[in-house]
Amino acid sequence: MSLHSTQTDFAATVENRDAAGAILLVCEHASNAFPEPWGSLGLTEAQQRAHVAWDPGALDLSRALAQRLDAALVHARVSRLIYDLNRGPDRPDAMAARSEVHDIPGNLGLTPQDRLHRAEALYLPFHTALHAEIVRRLALGRATVVITLHSFTPVYHGQPRAVEFGVIHDADDRLAKAIVAAAQSLTDLACALNEPYSAADGVTHTLRLQATPYGLANAMLEIRNDLIATPEQAEAMADRLAPVLQQALAAVAEG
Amino acid sequence: MSLHSTQTDFAATVENRDAAGAILLVCEHASNAFPEPWGSLGLTEAQQRAHVAWDPGALDLSRALAQRLDAALVHARVSRLIYDLNRGPDRPDAMAARSEVHDIPGNLGLTPQDRLHRAEALYLPFHTALHAEIVRRLALGRATVVITLHSFTPVYHGQPRAVEFGVIHDADDRLAKAIVAAAQSLTDLACALNEPYSAADGVTHTLRLQATPYGLANAMLEIRNDLIATPEQAEAMADRLAPVLQQALAAVAEG
Repeated sequence: MSLHSTQTDFAATVENRDAAGAILLVCEHASNAFPEPWGSLGLTEAQQRAHVAWDPGALDLSRALAQRLDAALVHARVSRLIYDLNRGPDRPDAMAARSEVHDIPGNLGLTPQDRLHRAEALYLPFHTALHAEIVRRLALGRATVVITLHSFTPVYHGQPRAVEFGVIHDADDRLAKAIVAAAQSLTDLACALNEPYSAADGVTHTLRLQATPYGLANAMLEIRNDLIATPEQAEAMADRLAPVLQQALAAVAEG
Repeated sequence: MSLHSTQTDFAATVENRDAAGAILLVCEHASNAFPEPWGSLGLTEAQQRAHVAWDPGALDLSRALAQRLDAALVHARVSRLIYDLNRGPDRPDAMAARSEVHDIPGNLGLTPQDRLHRAEALYLPFHTALHAEIVRRLALGRATVVITLHSFTPVYHGQPRAVEFGVIHDADDRLAKAIVAAAQSLTDLACALNEPYSAADGVTHTLRLQATPYGLANAMLEIRNDLIATPEQAEAMADRLAPVLQQALAAVAEG
């Protein structure tokens, strides 16, 4: 894969920014890095590798899809437990003191200044980098569709999840519904709209912030992480999903 | 007026950023400066002073309101004819080739690269500066209401406009309706909702981009510019409007 025009800063990496395709992929939970000055937040190494710290497999899948779809990709470089880039800085779960069954010691008793420091170090530059890509594409007259890509744990609070591929929409449901239809037509994945959660759970912040103001078609993809646990699985999933996204894009473009 | 914590860059000035009030004022058309590398765009000096180049009186009124309401203020430093900060970079009228009855020679035949250069020099840094203020306030847990402030010409395409004070809303109409109610109760201004234009005309971009994603109450104010043509008139108008905004804010806060 040729990752030309790559730009990296502390909060965000933009790969493949001159790609010709319409899709701009966003992976807010790509990383389980715990850099200074925050460090491990008091988590064990096992916790730092677990799904609470990031979306395992999501970056591998994003890169494999970017290659197949000639898409640009913006991804995070710091664990979502330090700052969850898919949450505004007014949200308690932007810097969660508890996630699923895990207490996050380093997020207990944060002061407003602590929250401000993380928001300015991570949230603002990540979303500015993503906004810059959107502005650039719009100024150049390039078609742009925003797709955020996440993975979810097969077992949450002890409950197994049967869905394999969730597609979540915010105000504009065009693309999400087209993706579900294409997935049901082209694959045997257990695909569902607004599973394992939905906009009502506050998970569509990036779409609201970056796509909706410009009227850009958008959707959030959720892949069960046991299906993309290795790079090989992620490549195989990209082979299945790339035609799905292409068909859905064509359907939305036709209106 | 004490304008503490002022930050200025090429595209935006933030004044009074530590003000304690909930209102964040935004004045996208504050300036009729035509700096290099764009210069005058081929406009006469009279055209550079006219309402097509900026919103006359809007910055004076914004500053007078900021003082009375202890509000922060973000304002533009370059003419809207070089880049209209209340328009996304996909919009032709972001860099209009014609405005009301005026051709804008320097905006004819812009290339995609020309548009990109202006968007990256003006639109992106202005909105990043505004976003940074919102992020900062949200991270600190500060109540925030976004109000954009504009002025309009009393005669447009030869037609006189009777409305003196227009209040425009986008998806969230709470604050706009409360402002109209307060203006009708407290003043004798000819006040109207969604006059002299409305969101359907594409004039609520800043609200959509900056306030709506965070669920912040917001409104766009339009003052007829003959009522704020001098600094003294702007001060007098601020005396009339400050209680209106205070009453409207209280009404929205009560829900």
